[in-house]
Amino acid sequence: MALAFDSARWGALAAVRTRGDVGDGIASVLALLGRPDVISFAGGFPDPETFPRERVAALLHEFAAAGESPAFQYAPTRGLAGTLDVIADRLERQQGRRPAEDELLITSGGVEALELIGKSFVDPGDVVVVEAPTYLGSIQSFRSFEAELVPVTLEENGLDVAELEQRLAGGLRPKLLYTIPDHQNPAGVSLAADRRATLVELARFYGFLVVEDVAYRELGFEGESLPSLWSLGPDIVVQVGTTSKTLFPGVRLGWAAGPAGVVDRLVAAKQVTDQCAGALGQRLFEESERRGWIDEQLARSRALYRRKCERMLAALKRSMPESARWTTPRGGFFSWLTLPGVDAVELAGRAVEQGVAVVPGMLFFPDGRGTDTLRLSYSLVDEAKIDEGIARLGSIL
Amino acid sequence: MALAFDSARWGALAAVRTRGDVGDGIASVLALLGRPDVISFAGGFPDPETFPRERVAALLHEFAAAGESPAFQYAPTRGLAGTLDVIADRLERQQGRRPAEDELLITSGGVEALELIGKSFVDPGDVVVVEAPTYLGSIQSFRSFEAELVPVTLEENGLDVAELEQRLAGGLRPKLLYTIPDHQNPAGVSLAADRRATLVELARFYGFLVVEDVAYRELGFEGESLPSLWSLGPDIVVQVGTTSKTLFPGVRLGWAAGPAGVVDRLVAAKQVTDQCAGALGQRLFEESERRGWIDEQLARSRALYRRKCERMLAALKRSMPESARWTTPRGGFFSWLTLPGVDAVELAGRAVEQGVAVVPGMLFFPDGRGTDTLRLSYSLVDEAKIDEGIARLGSIL
Repeated sequence: MALAFDSARWGALAAVRTRGDVGDGIASVLALLGRPDVISFAGGFPDPETFPRERVAALLHEFAAAGESPAFQYAPTRGLAGTLDVIADRLERQQGRRPAEDELLITSGGVEALELIGKSFVDPGDVVVVEAPTYLGSIQSFRSFEAELVPVTLEENGLDVAELEQRLAGGLRPKLLYTIPDHQNPAGVSLAADRRATLVELARFYGFLVVEDVAYRELGFEGESLPSLWSLGPDIVVQVGTTSKTLFPGVRLGWAAGPAGVVDRLVAAKQVTDQCAGALGQRLFEESERRGWIDEQLARSRALYRRKCERMLAALKRSMPESARWTTPRGGFFSWLTLPGVDAVELAGRAVEQGVAVVPGMLFFPDGRGTDTLRLSYSLVDEAKIDEGIARLGSIL
Repeated sequence: MALAFDSARWGALAAVRTRGDVGDGIASVLALLGRPDVISFAGGFPDPETFPRERVAALLHEFAAAGESPAFQYAPTRGLAGTLDVIADRLERQQGRRPAEDELLITSGGVEALELIGKSFVDPGDVVVVEAPTYLGSIQSFRSFEAELVPVTLEENGLDVAELEQRLAGGLRPKLLYTIPDHQNPAGVSLAADRRATLVELARFYGFLVVEDVAYRELGFEGESLPSLWSLGPDIVVQVGTTSKTLFPGVRLGWAAGPAGVVDRLVAAKQVTDQCAGALGQRLFEESERRGWIDEQLARSRALYRRKCERMLAALKRSMPESARWTTPRGGFFSWLTLPGVDAVELAGRAVEQGVAVVPGMLFFPDGRGTDTLRLSYSLVDEAKIDEGIARLGSIL
């Protein structure tokens, strides 16, 4: 009587939104990280050296000794009041604007905020503008709601706002524009100040929502930063942040700050994604911030990533062919390598055979561009192996 | 030049899937919990007395002392290998079947598993059968993907499988059927053994996926349980579990076990919801389970909830009118009260004025049924206030 149920059968039952090529990209990147014999410039993970293990253990001991309940219980969907408060304080201190109560939401990491935005705003066929290249997870996330992704060129000074303006004038009507203005993933560049003002004006004029991902904003090597898009256009920008790079990724924690009419929808959507971000992570971040530990950790992290970055850039100078070009990050985790005439996918395959992992740049475009590009991450790689890794990569070229 | 952006404007940009009445229900339930002057039978939260605060603080101290990284880092999307292993062991011990590696996924709580299932399988208009009444979050979750919800009656012995069979024979073609077979939320009843076998056969014959939510399965007062649907039909059932009731809810953690062709799709979807469940929670659960602490905690939790349940049932007997009926839970958090001829929404409003919070049963039906029903939760209410709370409720009737 029973039908035979196999993968093909479940495939036939799957929702239309899943039938695209969703999801394999990140998995293949992460898979490269797992091989212990490989010197990996592949993943964008923070260095475990930055993890404040002892301090959070001491905090949890305090919570236990005090018989505290909120750290262990369900949290309100929008977030714990105290945690919302310290995040609002921090945004005010760093960006010169404090979100009102209904303009802020705590999320389960930055990527969940993208999911909530996609679920709340993207209908099949809606246009979402992304930088070319952009964060792979954003491509997958917006595609999972059947968005039409329109890439706009990313330059040394960030998104090519002139190209965007031209396309808007020509009739392009996006619902969302997704950008990483600071120390971009994957390209390691930042959006120039004048372009920020223009972008916000374009969003107001054409009526689209800017999704500003500030994952690497606090990791500028000099500790300084340009005005955030959200501070320039709080009426038209939703800012997505994460504590994965300022605390640690092992509690999924982030935030979204934006217009109340947007944030309210994200709160409603979050009730059925995971109901709330984990309260334990919220309380650990809250208390770490109250004691000034986040800024102390950040100062150490910036110094560490700067040192690793400089080492990698010096190694590239020694080992890369004349024709190669790469970006010079002023913060964040990534440099973007262009190798004219080289098939980067093939190169990445040969590199793994030589014990070096890099990510082909093509993955970061929604349209198959970037065949001669690579993303190099210096965040997780063992500092002492950077020279050797880049030398091996150079020897293949 | 700029358009005025207000809530109406963002509403116009919102995705079609958000325009239903998604999300307000749970929020209004949770809002009732916040008032400290109220004796609340409203929320389904675990009692903080069960939280193993000292033990998890000791574990985190161990992780820190050992300089461990995985607890603080990103985890693989499917879950940490060690955590997957202890969950598989536990399922094998308790349910007599061990999921294969590709049949198990760690999620950010049970509700996230429902989100992943909805996103992976539900197209607009697809039929999802639910119990009437059922978990409010499931109604909201499936609706958020524009499912057509078809309620089938829930009886003292669980889902009315005969009614389901009749409707299937009459042409009903669901893609999914969602059930909570053990100590159901909201009704506090369990699915009889013979109905379990029949349900699995119907799923095989008609080709739908059974979503088995086992949130309260391990909270049977006697510590025993009937065969899980997943153990009876691993080819046609995906089981959704949570550690919120066995460890604590403050780390969002759960699992889904099902056919590989289903679980693979959930893993792909999870890459863009939150990328992974928090590693810290995974490691805390893993080590707690390895040391036998989860079962110890469960034994204490069962005794506590049993005592509270018995106290509430005795109070109902004293305080309710002759015509009232209520279910007698053998585990879990809830009893279901039927008050023929009473408008339960109006009653709940008057009860709050008298300092008692209860949830109108109508919320747990997708079709407005249950106007004379209430859900009573004994899990979180202060044990010493149960008698007074139920007496106040009785005095209104």
